Amino acid sequence: MSGFEQLEVEADGPILWLRIHRPEAMNAYTAQMGAELVRGFALADQDDGIRVVILTAKGRVFCAGADVSAGAGAFDTQSGEGAKNFGSRDGDRADSDFIGAMQRCRKPSIVAFNGSAAGVGLTLTLPCDIRIAADTAKFGCVFTRRGLVPEAGSAWFLPRIVGLPTALRWCLTGALVPASEALAAGLVSELVPVEQLEERARALATEIAENTAPVATALTRRMLWEFSAQQTAAGALGVDAAMNIALGQGADVHEGVAAFLEKRLPRFPGKASSDMPANPWWPGS
Amino acid sequence: MSGFEQLEVEADGPILWLRIHRPEAMNAYTAQMGAELVRGFALADQDDGIRVVILTAKGRVFCAGADVSAGAGAFDTQSGEGAKNFGSRDGDRADSDFIGAMQRCRKPSIVAFNGSAAGVGLTLTLPCDIRIAADTAKFGCVFTRRGLVPEAGSAWFLPRIVGLPTALRWCLTGALVPASEALAAGLVSELVPVEQLEERARALATEIAENTAPVATALTRRMLWEFSAQQTAAGALGVDAAMNIALGQGADVHEGVAAFLEKRLPRFPGKASSDMPANPWWPGS
Amino acid sequence: MSGFEQLEVEADGPILWLRIHRPEAMNAYTAQMGAELVRGFALADQDDGIRVVILTAKGRVFCAGADVSAGAGAFDTQSGEGAKNFGSRDGDRADSDFIGAMQRCRKPSIVAFNGSAAGVGLTLTLPCDIRIAADTAKFGCVFTRRGLVPEAGSAWFLPRIVGLPTALRWCLTGALVPASEALAAGLVSELVPVEQLEERARALATEIAENTAPVATALTRRMLWEFSAQQTAAGALGVDAAMNIALGQGADVHEGVAAFLEKRLPRFPGKASSDMPANPWWPGS
Repeated sequence: MSGFEQLEVEADGPILWLRIHRPEAMNAYTAQMGAELVRGFALADQDDGIRVVILTAKGRVFCAGADVSAGAGAFDTQSGEGAKNFGSRDGDRADSDFIGAMQRCRKPSIVAFNGSAAGVGLTLTLPCDIRIAADTAKFGCVFTRRGLVPEAGSAWFLPRIVGLPTALRWCLTGALVPASEALAAGLVSELVPVEQLEERARALATEIAENTAPVATALTRRMLWEFSAQQTAAGALGVDAAMNIALGQGADVHEGVAAFLEKRLPRFPGKASSDMPANPWWPGS
Repeated sequence: MSGFEQLEVEADGPILWLRIHRPEAMNAYTAQMGAELVRGFALADQDDGIRVVILTAKGRVFCAGADVSAGAGAFDTQSGEGAKNFGSRDGDRADSDFIGAMQRCRKPSIVAFNGSAAGVGLTLTLPCDIRIAADTAKFGCVFTRRGLVPEAGSAWFLPRIVGLPTALRWCLTGALVPASEALAAGLVSELVPVEQLEERARALATEIAENTAPVATALTRRMLWEFSAQQTAAGALGVDAAMNIALGQGADVHEGVAAFLEKRLPRFPGKASSDMPANPWWPGS
Repeated sequence: MSGFEQLEVEADGPILWLRIHRPEAMNAYTAQMGAELVRGFALADQDDGIRVVILTAKGRVFCAGADVSAGAGAFDTQSGEGAKNFGSRDGDRADSDFIGAMQRCRKPSIVAFNGSAAGVGLTLTLPCDIRIAADTAKFGCVFTRRGLVPEAGSAWFLPRIVGLPTALRWCLTGALVPASEALAAGLVSELVPVEQLEERARALATEIAENTAPVATALTRRMLWEFSAQQTAAGALGVDAAMNIALGQGADVHEGVAAFLEKRLPRFPGKASSDMPANPWWPGS
């Protein structure tokens, strides 16, 4: 798709592939890459033909983290290089809105780590829903080794994914962890040989696309991210019954139950762009 | 016990057994079943002779989920069948107050999955405290495959039990997961051959009944559910010392320490119905 | 170090060792021990030469819990013994501020369980960051067996560390759990033979001290503990970019990037006592 330089964007049936591609710099993150991620997820959000996003990368590394090729001043946003990579020194980091773009996206997202991910190369994947990895990948929360703190909201995201004790240990030592430890901690749900990685990610995406309703998946991912962090179940209880009563009268649920009883794949008519029941996040139809 | 049709209710010493029993429909959930669960947990809550609730089911299935025997309109509360199963279309789902009844119950609860649980058949167990399963059981968060969203507050409950990444993956794919995966995720703490399931549940319940104080267990389960979800430890710190100071002057703690030092089982005199210290949830004695 | 009776305090290069030592009482907890923990963590907090605290104990047991040698009245703060161990009956438990001292400490902390820990002997370690154990250690959330409720804020801390279902099961049964179960639950991240325990704890502490920046680790542990419990990522996103922009212009990040590019250990100049960027918890320099 045109207009992208550091991402390769490919529509593949119901899947939108976003492949990080900066071969000259081990896919290191830049502000431009962040802005392209925002646009990639917005494309998926708005296109009813897309059911699932897969975020992966080309080459042997997923993302080496922030680009430190500028040397000791790489993170200095007063210098030209730091500003290029992380935005201006007044705290304006429009690129980091990839977090918001991922959270707001109406399509589930799968990350396929083809290789190692460090620093922001890891944290930029945390708002996605499912992560799998090549069994050769390593992961590094290296911030404290560079003198930095966990960024991109990862002090909130990482403990919700791997648990607080693991997040503390990984971030306080800054050590690289092997794929097997990432699996045990729940950072990824599955390890596969790298040559089977895209095939496995496609199978997961296809399972979602063939079996589930677009409106229901958009609402479900949003509900889980938001209500899971609330202090009581009241928020979830306050809206789930009403949403299911509305959905239960609609065409998607009629089709879902009929397909189940007839033991066939469903063909859900509802569109995420226009057929939402009343909900706290998106305007209904 | 009389007055129950879809639950079998049996008092067995300090244990109240609630067994789902709708053999004609694979124990599928109905609004009546929800209302009977409310009454079952209220019985346990009010009877000082009952120390632990065990929720299980009869037959080969735990609960097949909502009853979809009415066909495509099964969830349509404008039609007769949907209304029968889920309440009226104005959003009044009194049956779903089984969540509240379980949360408010002063007795710990154990779920013993004798077989598979899908949809609401799984989510109705989430406010209970301990879950074990037959090694043949399967579990399905099938909502998105029917066009629905996770109900009964499960967008809050499920991530607190299995973690957010697993909750996302299970709910977004809607796939059935085997018992081994449920064990690894923490949905259940133990798998046993189905013929040993009730015996094992009874042993767990007996361990609680023989060793622990009724007042302390009622408060402890409430504290863990509530304080674990709060933003800071301040709430817990604000009340636990005061409660323990009050308890420390009472007969239960005198007996608990004496039994420990004498290496014998305790005989706690305190009743959950009437001997609470000052606390945020129940009136004291 | 002088002025300590129930802790042995040893400065060992960048490590402050705190070793519980009450051989006459299986290291049972007293109010004095709590007050000495407060002072030990305050020492580490204020001394820029100290990078990591290691909390362990001498003898075969880590801490047997509250001292119940006074018998049935051991927790009765109206009696002399209870008051000695837990403070006065008006709810004033200054000793329990060890929770606050651990949380506020600018240095990461590692617990090395040389042996079993029960009751407060376990809960007093929960605000620390990393826990490892001798493979012979056992752990007991025994409160309900004594007629008590989980104290020292552990209804908040324990579920954040081992997950809610495990916290419920351990606290409701009150049973002792073996080291292997503590490892599986995430209470400890590693088991080692007891004779290698201090060596392994020292290696972990040294890894932190040699590789990471004092300012960054102080902020990182605080961020993870606080933001991980918040309802949304907004709090973390609101401060992490600003902190990293400030840090990125400073000497620590210049050194961290240079050391990484030169493949050598860093020598971070920033001090936790005086070189913080603007942050919500400590005054900046």
